[in-house]
Amino acid sequence: MAVYTEIVDEDLATFIAQYEIGEALSATGIVEGVENSNYLLNTKEGRFILTLYENRVDPADLPFFLALIEHLAAKDIACPLPVRARDGKVLRELSNRPAAIFTFLAGMWPRRIQPYHCGELGKALARMHLAGEDFTLRRSNDLSVQSWRPLLCRSADRADEVQQGLAEDLEKELTNLELNWPDSLPSGVIHADLFPDNVFFVGPRLTGLIDFYFACTDMYAYDIAICMNAWCFEVDGSFNVAKANRLLMSYRVVRDFSDDELASLPVLARGAAMRFLLTRLYDWLYTPADALVTKKDPLEYWKKLRFHQGVTGPEEYGLA
Amino acid sequence: MAVYTEIVDEDLATFIAQYEIGEALSATGIVEGVENSNYLLNTKEGRFILTLYENRVDPADLPFFLALIEHLAAKDIACPLPVRARDGKVLRELSNRPAAIFTFLAGMWPRRIQPYHCGELGKALARMHLAGEDFTLRRSNDLSVQSWRPLLCRSADRADEVQQGLAEDLEKELTNLELNWPDSLPSGVIHADLFPDNVFFVGPRLTGLIDFYFACTDMYAYDIAICMNAWCFEVDGSFNVAKANRLLMSYRVVRDFSDDELASLPVLARGAAMRFLLTRLYDWLYTPADALVTKKDPLEYWKKLRFHQGVTGPEEYGLA
Repeated sequence: MAVYTEIVDEDLATFIAQYEIGEALSATGIVEGVENSNYLLNTKEGRFILTLYENRVDPADLPFFLALIEHLAAKDIACPLPVRARDGKVLRELSNRPAAIFTFLAGMWPRRIQPYHCGELGKALARMHLAGEDFTLRRSNDLSVQSWRPLLCRSADRADEVQQGLAEDLEKELTNLELNWPDSLPSGVIHADLFPDNVFFVGPRLTGLIDFYFACTDMYAYDIAICMNAWCFEVDGSFNVAKANRLLMSYRVVRDFSDDELASLPVLARGAAMRFLLTRLYDWLYTPADALVTKKDPLEYWKKLRFHQGVTGPEEYGLA
Repeated sequence: MAVYTEIVDEDLATFIAQYEIGEALSATGIVEGVENSNYLLNTKEGRFILTLYENRVDPADLPFFLALIEHLAAKDIACPLPVRARDGKVLRELSNRPAAIFTFLAGMWPRRIQPYHCGELGKALARMHLAGEDFTLRRSNDLSVQSWRPLLCRSADRADEVQQGLAEDLEKELTNLELNWPDSLPSGVIHADLFPDNVFFVGPRLTGLIDFYFACTDMYAYDIAICMNAWCFEVDGSFNVAKANRLLMSYRVVRDFSDDELASLPVLARGAAMRFLLTRLYDWLYTPADALVTKKDPLEYWKKLRFHQGVTGPEEYGLA
């Protein structure tokens, strides 16, 4: 994590006393959650997650995220549920940061993705899209196509340090994406960051989704494209068509996609690759070496982008 | 932490199956524990800590540490108890590292030390010393006086980058310590690293001690001196005599110290300051900037050393 906020024991006791969850028996800082500081909290009433929001999350967005999670949970989408304090609020302050308590979600995220994981993911993603249909708040996707040129500008003059010719290649691809980006596909609430470490399983069963802090209003099919990039490539960079097939087929059992959505998958997958490539590239070049962050390789997403550039139609994603 | 080992879910399931603790419902990497990778493990049977030993712990020492913890726990010293697998063993392998499972200890370590914390600590430390008296294994303290000159040599030529004249000051102090280091004080098992983050409390009650991975055979009074340095100085560097009084008086209620031990406290406190100063200095100068470690300020211990250099007798530690 980039920052990790310590909590003074007396402050924690005062904070917990605002809730009806009993006294804290332990609070253990946990490793997961890149954007925030998370503690696993044990009280006499059970297990909870205590989240302190660090600078990377805009406090103005928190009401959207928390309301969304409550909305989804009320529709039986398994996710950590914000716990209301005695005064009915879900958002308070602790150690000078916005803070909230969530119910604990059993499970572990899968380290070695199997096709059945992708099947479970597809169903859960489609259910989440349907459950969000009547959610009334909106949040624009500040990491979609309109943000990519400014992002590229910030890294362009050093991109070739990562790979010779990268700046020019990205420039070309970006122009193409800007020209061809779809704008009339079905939209609603998307997770926008549903990587394996945000999806929990116990054995073969998906137990829930976490980390909605990139959630926004955007095209459903773009969310599918993000998942396809995150779940269906092997460590050696090759595309696993069996995994993509499971993801897409399972998704459409719950929410079928239109012909337009299907036809747009290749360009959306290129865009999804561009989005993660650009943020990783910036972090790679400009994160101070002593920050407590594991930098992720931007070229992993360059390889994914290259794959999708060669795709001629959605059938190459394993749709018969 | 310097290293953090990921565990593949299938490997974890295979590992857990060797124990009678039920299936894993979750395994969450936790932030604490600088030397090892620790996971908080939830199974149907309860909560456990899963520890993977990283390179900083010598595997040859693990039998000593694990036997010691079992010995202490059998004498009602509250600490995480190693869980035996079906085959009776406490040490196995996971993700290519030695690994063990421990019972979960409730509590949090105190972030803001109050005198009552020092009182509880004194009693627990003395009880631990008594409980270890009949422990038959031995492990020499490889971070005691004989190690300090080689340690200083490794940092001496760059010590002045941290503070002008530091190398010379340390050289002088070290010569003094080598001449005056006591060698006939009561000895036995000491913890040797009982900083606040290794002592858990629920409210005012001490619930247990953790992290015995520096434990060794050495002078009991040296262990007290380490604690005095770690618990009785304020953030501004000043010595809090009320805290030291509580630590020492509470300790001697359980195990009284001899006149020799008392008279040696100032030199032991200087030595204890030297030991942590030297390891911190080396880490400060030579830990790569991109290691996932928060480097600790060596000069904090220089200030403590300076304080003890000015002490003329043990009564200045708050003993009436």
